[in-house]
Amino acid sequence: MIKKPYLLSPGPTPVPPEVLQAGSRPLIHHRTSEFSEIFMEVTEALRYVFQTTQDVYTLTSSGSGAMEAAVVNILDPGDKALVLNAGKFGDRWSKICRTYGIAVREIKVPWGSDIPAAELAEQIDAHPDVQAVFSTLSETSTGTVYDIEGFARITAATEILLVVDGISGLGAMPCPMDHWGVDVLISGSQKSFMTPPGLAFIAFSPKAWRSVETSSLPRFYFDAQAAHNALHKQTSAWTPAISLIRQLREALKIMRGIGLEGLISHHRAMAEATRAGVQALGLDLLSQIPGNILTAVKTPHGLDGVRLVKLMQDRFKVHIAGAQDPHKGEFFRIGHLGFIGGFDIITALTALEMTLGEMGYTDFEQGGSLSAAQAIIKENWI
Amino acid sequence: MIKKPYLLSPGPTPVPPEVLQAGSRPLIHHRTSEFSEIFMEVTEALRYVFQTTQDVYTLTSSGSGAMEAAVVNILDPGDKALVLNAGKFGDRWSKICRTYGIAVREIKVPWGSDIPAAELAEQIDAHPDVQAVFSTLSETSTGTVYDIEGFARITAATEILLVVDGISGLGAMPCPMDHWGVDVLISGSQKSFMTPPGLAFIAFSPKAWRSVETSSLPRFYFDAQAAHNALHKQTSAWTPAISLIRQLREALKIMRGIGLEGLISHHRAMAEATRAGVQALGLDLLSQIPGNILTAVKTPHGLDGVRLVKLMQDRFKVHIAGAQDPHKGEFFRIGHLGFIGGFDIITALTALEMTLGEMGYTDFEQGGSLSAAQAIIKENWI
Repeated sequence: MIKKPYLLSPGPTPVPPEVLQAGSRPLIHHRTSEFSEIFMEVTEALRYVFQTTQDVYTLTSSGSGAMEAAVVNILDPGDKALVLNAGKFGDRWSKICRTYGIAVREIKVPWGSDIPAAELAEQIDAHPDVQAVFSTLSETSTGTVYDIEGFARITAATEILLVVDGISGLGAMPCPMDHWGVDVLISGSQKSFMTPPGLAFIAFSPKAWRSVETSSLPRFYFDAQAAHNALHKQTSAWTPAISLIRQLREALKIMRGIGLEGLISHHRAMAEATRAGVQALGLDLLSQIPGNILTAVKTPHGLDGVRLVKLMQDRFKVHIAGAQDPHKGEFFRIGHLGFIGGFDIITALTALEMTLGEMGYTDFEQGGSLSAAQAIIKENWI
Repeated sequence: MIKKPYLLSPGPTPVPPEVLQAGSRPLIHHRTSEFSEIFMEVTEALRYVFQTTQDVYTLTSSGSGAMEAAVVNILDPGDKALVLNAGKFGDRWSKICRTYGIAVREIKVPWGSDIPAAELAEQIDAHPDVQAVFSTLSETSTGTVYDIEGFARITAATEILLVVDGISGLGAMPCPMDHWGVDVLISGSQKSFMTPPGLAFIAFSPKAWRSVETSSLPRFYFDAQAAHNALHKQTSAWTPAISLIRQLREALKIMRGIGLEGLISHHRAMAEATRAGVQALGLDLLSQIPGNILTAVKTPHGLDGVRLVKLMQDRFKVHIAGAQDPHKGEFFRIGHLGFIGGFDIITALTALEMTLGEMGYTDFEQGGSLSAAQAIIKENWI
């Protein structure tokens, strides 16, 4: 039997054929009008996905590079930051801030739990001397979505900047930067952008830009002022990942064709179908507020979660993601982000049922998850 | 007439078809044994090109990112650095060092001029309290090659670290890291590595690694310790540019097939053919010690050098590089780096003669540069 590989990870995500093909074109030089045209088209389309009139800077780095860029461009040594830490990537904000001598206070909740905006309001009332709040739209380690709109309503009334990690969330969940009042928003190419990893994006509100202009933390490669100056010459500050940017152009054409609302409702349908499927198997979700990006499922009692993910990949060629440290094995994550169609969800659930069966877990009706997911896909198949 | 495009820039350089094709394969996840195998193969091949037994870390960034990585991983605030500044990229070392509060002393010479090792020895005798010397193997702004072997002989006898920007030079000029005693060596994918831009490489000698372990400059994305820890788990610290790494694997296969000596003698022949060609036109070279990477040619008196480069590109589709600020227009640069064959040199010279002619400069024998270059190519065609 031919065993085809399927990628259902929360990043990298599958890349459409026309985007893949753009990665194999002979190179052009990045200081040419031909490249500038591509770069400005990409920048304009990124503004649309970010829902901002501000510039969106494209960095050649992973999303973690953009996280560092957010920190070093808006803060000063000794500044205070409030980090909303509900998982591995919230925790990364704290690590980066501490690296640069920022005093970090955290609202820390168990993985998968909510952080109500009211709790942020309380913390800010009690400690109003923070310069920035660092938050996460979709916490990739758990699939939980956070109330960025609510957080922004609180920070907008203050001098405090709201920084949002939209790496896995943007393009698949609502996060209109200007409308909500997000001050720094970042994302990455290998998520809803359906492009290989290697590019990250960052945009600053006018309020955040005032901090960029005065911030004295050291930075060179990630300097926003350098990116700004270069963009106004229709280019990038350093030699960019030219081939990835050409791929991104193709992906952004697809995204604009579907439209942001269409993308969000598509991802919502994928998430609902996945959740319906795993719940039909009697499995529990990890997250209190699961978003559109991935579905984190608790490993059934008595099973080895690490082995489950490995078996599903080795035996059935369906690549999902495990849980990250310190929760290894406790749950697994089915990504339904980017270029994923409804039948991919059915595929993932089929492989999941077969994997559970091979592991001796048979406490479900065979095919039950498939028909539950199919019902949602059918309903959304307009 | 069909007008085919040619890229003779010192970066990005042309990419071989099998490397291009590897850029359009469906993505795999970076936390899999399949990716680890590719990553370790690439790391091993990079060790060969670097001529080191140390680890070579692959960063998702441009070469400037690796320059910053070199600075922030080995120095402490208030340290002193000696920068050998003979062009735009030597100057960049100073800029990055100053960004991080390093006290910079420079040996600064006019673009294209030599920096004799004796001058470095004198400076170090006079000011022995520097922690690191920052140098450039091939100064891409001028094509000049520097005496890294001589510099290393001086620093090896001291506690001072020798940092070498081998971004455009490595793989095309000799720079055996371990044998010469280079302490930090960096390079980039879009140069002799025949891969699109977006990856950079860095390696540390054991002497440099001792500084990495104690250095207190802030860094997160470019942290060598994080790269080190990840590599020992056969992966990268952050999500890497997976598709570029797969392309790099194909390019490194080609490079190993030719061998380092073969690559260096190939690039030497390309450089000699180009120099013979432009000198046959009566044009002057900019550099006192031109290397194998590119040939910088002074713009003939009375001509506009910016227009020359633009005309050659717009009219003949041959992309060479102009001179960078503050020497714009004064000279032009023909890159002969990476996947460039002898007939590409003939093409560039043909277009150069035709461009000069269109600009009204006819003080040369038509075809003279072609036969001069051809003689060298023939001699080297083994």
